[in-house]
Amino acid sequence: MARVYNFNAGPAALPLEVLEKAQSEMLDFAGTGMSVMEMSHRSKEFQGVVDDAEASVRQLMGVSDDYAVLFLQGGASLQFAMIPMNLRREGKTADYVDTGSWASKAIKEGKIGGSTNVAWSGKEENYVRTPKQAELKLTPGAEYVHICSNETIGGIRYPQFPKTDAPLIADMSSEIMSRVIDVDQFGMIYAGAQKNIGPSGLALVIIRKDLIERTPETVPIFLRYKTHADEGSLYNTPNTWGVYFLKLVMDWMDSLGGVAAVQKINEEKAAALYSVIDSSDFWRCPVETESRSIMNVVWRLPSEELEEQFVSEAKKAGMIGLKGHRSVGGIRASIYNAVPKAAVDALAAFMKEFESKNG
Amino acid sequence: MARVYNFNAGPAALPLEVLEKAQSEMLDFAGTGMSVMEMSHRSKEFQGVVDDAEASVRQLMGVSDDYAVLFLQGGASLQFAMIPMNLRREGKTADYVDTGSWASKAIKEGKIGGSTNVAWSGKEENYVRTPKQAELKLTPGAEYVHICSNETIGGIRYPQFPKTDAPLIADMSSEIMSRVIDVDQFGMIYAGAQKNIGPSGLALVIIRKDLIERTPETVPIFLRYKTHADEGSLYNTPNTWGVYFLKLVMDWMDSLGGVAAVQKINEEKAAALYSVIDSSDFWRCPVETESRSIMNVVWRLPSEELEEQFVSEAKKAGMIGLKGHRSVGGIRASIYNAVPKAAVDALAAFMKEFESKNG
Repeated sequence: MARVYNFNAGPAALPLEVLEKAQSEMLDFAGTGMSVMEMSHRSKEFQGVVDDAEASVRQLMGVSDDYAVLFLQGGASLQFAMIPMNLRREGKTADYVDTGSWASKAIKEGKIGGSTNVAWSGKEENYVRTPKQAELKLTPGAEYVHICSNETIGGIRYPQFPKTDAPLIADMSSEIMSRVIDVDQFGMIYAGAQKNIGPSGLALVIIRKDLIERTPETVPIFLRYKTHADEGSLYNTPNTWGVYFLKLVMDWMDSLGGVAAVQKINEEKAAALYSVIDSSDFWRCPVETESRSIMNVVWRLPSEELEEQFVSEAKKAGMIGLKGHRSVGGIRASIYNAVPKAAVDALAAFMKEFESKNG
Repeated sequence: MARVYNFNAGPAALPLEVLEKAQSEMLDFAGTGMSVMEMSHRSKEFQGVVDDAEASVRQLMGVSDDYAVLFLQGGASLQFAMIPMNLRREGKTADYVDTGSWASKAIKEGKIGGSTNVAWSGKEENYVRTPKQAELKLTPGAEYVHICSNETIGGIRYPQFPKTDAPLIADMSSEIMSRVIDVDQFGMIYAGAQKNIGPSGLALVIIRKDLIERTPETVPIFLRYKTHADEGSLYNTPNTWGVYFLKLVMDWMDSLGGVAAVQKINEEKAAALYSVIDSSDFWRCPVETESRSIMNVVWRLPSEELEEQFVSEAKKAGMIGLKGHRSVGGIRASIYNAVPKAAVDALAAFMKEFESKNG
């Protein structure tokens, strides 16, 4: 068995150590004589898993007691729907910033059941950057401002987050815990787990406790943040495997020295690729320099034929997931926390070799 | 490592063979060089998993093309909310049958956003049986009739399902694929996976295609059945581990000879416990004979002290999960498909021994 170098955009690479740990505990979790999947979510053993997972998230991200930390299902896509249902009261407007495919999906749900203002859109520029503060046309008295902090498809991110009067809500699915952020800047942060912190089927929601109280009683019980916050994410059976696995990923993050240490590695990984891209006209990154993502690096080759050849030869060399999203084409390397530096170095070396043969 | 005999109510026992298979593929699924959790849900390999899972469900349960088979997140609890949102049009009434804790949770969500009629309630009788056909006070022109086909806490089930003019919707979380049913009798069947068919974090929904068209456009996109049906459960990233694991459980069901064969084993398992219970006044099953579940067997001992002693000594003997739900007390043995006959035989033997010592 040879493990590939995995540049998938999501679901994506998981830390090998974590997979091995989960594998070793598959038939017997912590001496219970059963898998963690076979255990009651109300057992003291599983309560320990949830408690540890929450404590680790709080510690790694610096989340204060002003916020609830929730483990929900439905990924970021359910959050796109829950946010306006819960946080936009009748007659009020929610602001959204359109930076690409994921921001647009959130806007689509935002348009249902209430008033939505698109405060800025990068669509006409083909989503090559995030906006500057001065460009945002925010609504006075808006209920919240929604951003996608890192766009997986466009390969762009906010170098600094917008300053807003209304609570700032960020979909951080593709960059959560990849760089140090100040949680207190946000009303809510959420992420599907399957890019940086675990398997799919789990969403991490960090929400300011005062916002939880906004929800009108016309919202179904299951779809209220308060329901899950009041029950410590155990209102119903959670994705127990997902929470367990996330907890193992948090332990692994800890072992590396936390988010700041991981950020340093991530910046080195990204720099290794961008420096090859910038070293020659053979490669071209469509993203404005300031907005370049350190999680999803996108670039073009001189022709689509060469791009296809690149993806195909990389695959033969054990590097998978490099094809750009079908909506934009080109090449994309997703280099999330769990993608080792060795994988990125191998890719950078492969790029240089490819250029010398085909440039 | 000793595996326990696992009588948990859910999440519950999983087939050992399936756990071992998942364990063996943890670092390398089907020669891809990665875990199934690290793979794009849009890859041809994962599409194969979803297709196989759907085909197996259709084959095992006899689901025709008139129905969509969906793999969703949020468990049965999200279905409690989605059903009225999607299937009860404005100004119309939905009928619900109240047979216990789970039926009640569905009713609570049903009461939000529209008219709900409780067609029968077993509450005053302490939920010791399911209703007879003639007892149901159904609404003419109701949008649907909702039942919970097996109540995990009360240990009751429908020996026959109600006949209704409106589409019959059944929460089968705690008995799905435990007995042969006629799917065509239902408008919709759904189940959280974590009792009989997989890990938590996954819900199986089988819904008649014409019902999918009912949903008003005021419902958020993610919460419409049509959204997921149109995209073959891949509108967003599904719980890929859950779908994969369910598919392995379906293969295991196949290897046993399908639902009819498993039903036969389940009936033997249930009979082994009920025959001990009925053999002496030391034990007492509160459930009316006709309504007795073959998945969740509940019974009482002469005193709460003896019940505590029973649970504690059983645990020492390697049998866990036998404490009745906190809302009703007593003893409960959940003997889902994956609980081996050997576990039930061991429990029956333990009961006889316990009675001879304490009776």
